[in-house]
Amino acid sequence: MVPRHPRLDPLADRYAARTHGMKTSEIRALFSVVSRPEVVSLAGGMPAVTALPLDAVGSMIGELVSGMGAQTLQYGSGQGDPRLRERICDVMALEGITDASPSEVVVTVGSQQGLDLVTRVFCDPGDVILAEGPSYVGALGVFQAAEARVRHVPMDDDGLIPEALEQALLECRANGDRVKFLYTVPNFHNPAGVTLSEPRRQAIVDIADRYDLLVIEDNPYGLLGFDHEPMRALRARDDQRVIYLGSFSKTFSPGLRVGWVLAPLAVREKLVLATEAQVLCPPSLTQYAVARYLDTQPWREQIKLFTELYRERRDATLESLDALMPPGTTWTRPDGGFYVWLKLPHGLDSKLMQPRAVGAHVAYVPGIGFYADGSGREYMRLSYCYPEPDQIREGVRRLARVIEAELDLHSTFDAVDTGTFRAVGRSDGSAARTVVGPANSDRIED
Amino acid sequence: MVPRHPRLDPLADRYAARTHGMKTSEIRALFSVVSRPEVVSLAGGMPAVTALPLDAVGSMIGELVSGMGAQTLQYGSGQGDPRLRERICDVMALEGITDASPSEVVVTVGSQQGLDLVTRVFCDPGDVILAEGPSYVGALGVFQAAEARVRHVPMDDDGLIPEALEQALLECRANGDRVKFLYTVPNFHNPAGVTLSEPRRQAIVDIADRYDLLVIEDNPYGLLGFDHEPMRALRARDDQRVIYLGSFSKTFSPGLRVGWVLAPLAVREKLVLATEAQVLCPPSLTQYAVARYLDTQPWREQIKLFTELYRERRDATLESLDALMPPGTTWTRPDGGFYVWLKLPHGLDSKLMQPRAVGAHVAYVPGIGFYADGSGREYMRLSYCYPEPDQIREGVRRLARVIEAELDLHSTFDAVDTGTFRAVGRSDGSAARTVVGPANSDRIED
Ligand SMILES: Cc1ncc(COP(=O)(O)O)c(C=O)c1O
Ligand SMILES: Cc1ncc(COP(=O)(O)O)c(C=O)c1O
Repeated sequence: MVPRHPRLDPLADRYAARTHGMKTSEIRALFSVVSRPEVVSLAGGMPAVTALPLDAVGSMIGELVSGMGAQTLQYGSGQGDPRLRERICDVMALEGITDASPSEVVVTVGSQQGLDLVTRVFCDPGDVILAEGPSYVGALGVFQAAEARVRHVPMDDDGLIPEALEQALLECRANGDRVKFLYTVPNFHNPAGVTLSEPRRQAIVDIADRYDLLVIEDNPYGLLGFDHEPMRALRARDDQRVIYLGSFSKTFSPGLRVGWVLAPLAVREKLVLATEAQVLCPPSLTQYAVARYLDTQPWREQIKLFTELYRERRDATLESLDALMPPGTTWTRPDGGFYVWLKLPHGLDSKLMQPRAVGAHVAYVPGIGFYADGSGREYMRLSYCYPEPDQIREGVRRLARVIEAELDLHSTFDAVDTGTFRAVGRSDGSAARTVVGPANSDRIED
Repeated sequence: MVPRHPRLDPLADRYAARTHGMKTSEIRALFSVVSRPEVVSLAGGMPAVTALPLDAVGSMIGELVSGMGAQTLQYGSGQGDPRLRERICDVMALEGITDASPSEVVVTVGSQQGLDLVTRVFCDPGDVILAEGPSYVGALGVFQAAEARVRHVPMDDDGLIPEALEQALLECRANGDRVKFLYTVPNFHNPAGVTLSEPRRQAIVDIADRYDLLVIEDNPYGLLGFDHEPMRALRARDDQRVIYLGSFSKTFSPGLRVGWVLAPLAVREKLVLATEAQVLCPPSLTQYAVARYLDTQPWREQIKLFTELYRERRDATLESLDALMPPGTTWTRPDGGFYVWLKLPHGLDSKLMQPRAVGAHVAYVPGIGFYADGSGREYMRLSYCYPEPDQIREGVRRLARVIEAELDLHSTFDAVDTGTFRAVGRSDGSAARTVVGPANSDRIED
């Protein structure tokens, strides 16, 4: 018998170049930890699907198969079910995208696949992608698999900083870099929890126009705001330079894996060819399930119910953080979505602190997972979407104790940093004018 | 308003290199034609899903959502549901793969995604993939998207020709080509309809061993034999050099998009990372549906029912071809699966003939779709899986008339080729010793 766990991979010299760079994300690496019942997980981004009317959804899907098996169990078109694409246009209208046609929509296996398709269609190895620092870990995985180089652009409490974007573009131009697109999550950012302000939206679209920059607007959380109506999408302001990614993962169900891309027709054609080569077509059953759900169930009310639930959890998170965190710890104040981005007191490292946190039965995602360049050690992402408010309070309590213990250990009380997120990497709040990465100077190694 | 149908794609200079090579497959190009009710389509490869017990499957899936919504509607693991991976091992045991462990299985969005993942993990641009001539069109799409070069290896009525494989390997070695793997469909080949014989299976595994060649065994049809028990898989003979791709598309439902890859652990790890970057995880609902179906429904009996239905349709096809085709037309005689591969009389071109066939209300897939090198014009694929026997007979009748009319037109009655498929590209049946492409000499252009 050949051993099942060969120490040396006999195929090691045969993989593609892209394969050597692939590694397990900080989130996936935590899976075994966060599933232990004694651990309060503030790590995962799992939506609260049990808040759905499961009986109604169950009988709806059952009837789809019994009554329409010839369609729901059969291959479909690569672009996706036409009826679903119509309903997707209705959903996007809630964010001011009123001119989208179903022919410009491609249904994908979650918006993750949408992002992968866009990246494959546009990026050759070595191409540059601009992305917020921090950025969605799944996007970084896609970019790495495409062997693209990521250049982070700083953000603050109002989202991506337009001046920093322009600066990055100029520097890339000077370097001769081929910038393929800006990847941005304008609403309730993962992991930063911040939202791009109204004036900045226009500024970014203007920059895109001036620099002939393609923008990938990734927007799974846009309808999950706590305080105000959905903001107008970047795509609503520019239908030629903005490619929009949407998802039903956070507004309905991630287990169905239904997302979409809205793109100008020429790009849409390429995306369809790319998805056909990748999966032939998205699952028919799950597409019909979403279309039927939108057609027959009170989905807007359900979204309201979700946001009320998430708001409560956000409140529990912020109240506990306010009450319990030691001085020098700062965090963002999301008004929608799933995430709080927390900055540790000067000198602490969230990755090195992780074993102690797990020992104390609380889990988070270390900040380094959200940067392509290894920075972000002083940050962590806290997700409040899944645990109940009481669990959240207990989790924050445990986390506060861990941070305090680390501070004791390192005796760095005199070096606390009281900056807010606005001052990413700087303490004077003037980050906007220059391209700065996140602060590395306070890594625990030094 | 910016025009919706710009004549010039403003992003044309911005796509990745791989994107420029993408084109619509011969099959997809036919979609609008074959959906017209007056057309008998022998083109598509759609399984007969209405032969499923739709009510039972519907209530089964409905209950999964009502009763287990917290799992079926939630994100799952990138590798796929553990219970499903166990059941997949049971399914593979039917083909002699008795040592597979669920930990070596990765669930994919159809076996199409499995093939895409394997290709991405192994192939850099310019790498060579060996593949039967003809080959599955969806595989050629994947290889093209990976910018790999395909080198066809001839086959005959007994499948891939081992001597030709060895010859191809030697030539690639001499050329300094990096051969990444052999892609082969050993059972009821799409499109050729032939099956790799028992002695050749061993011969190919031996060659793989001698030349240190990786083999991708793509096997969606293996359980759909009409005359004998499933043959022993290549993977059952070599668990280190063979990566096995499986699918529930033909044995249960393609609309669920559930397939899998069985690979040695080191490769499996890479595949999981690659699928996480591509789709995060496969849909949970469809995975639970397949696992529950295998657990609770008489799936072996259902496969028997499918094969009886397909056997009838195969019989209708072969009987009609025998009765109606003009001399000089030859075809393969499948004993399982979905496809007959037909060779036109000398001088005819299936691609050029297509408009006339559509005019006569019959559709097929032109042979050129199944070659990476533009050859195959004298061939066509006929699928008997979807139409009823009477429709098949009518379709073949129409096709025979079209071929006769073409023959009249070209007055090539004196140049008919009576060779069988064994004589691909040769008329003396001795193709086995040398690497020959499909016959191009009888293209209509010359
Ligand atoms: C910013 C962002 N984009 C994309 C995704 C992927 O979502 P989907 O489930 O639609 O693939 C996520 C999921 O967490 C996300 O946070
Ligand atoms: C040889 C072969 N491989 C793979 C596939 C893809 O099947 P799936 O539906 O599992 O993606 C097909 C479908 O026709 C096929 O014929």
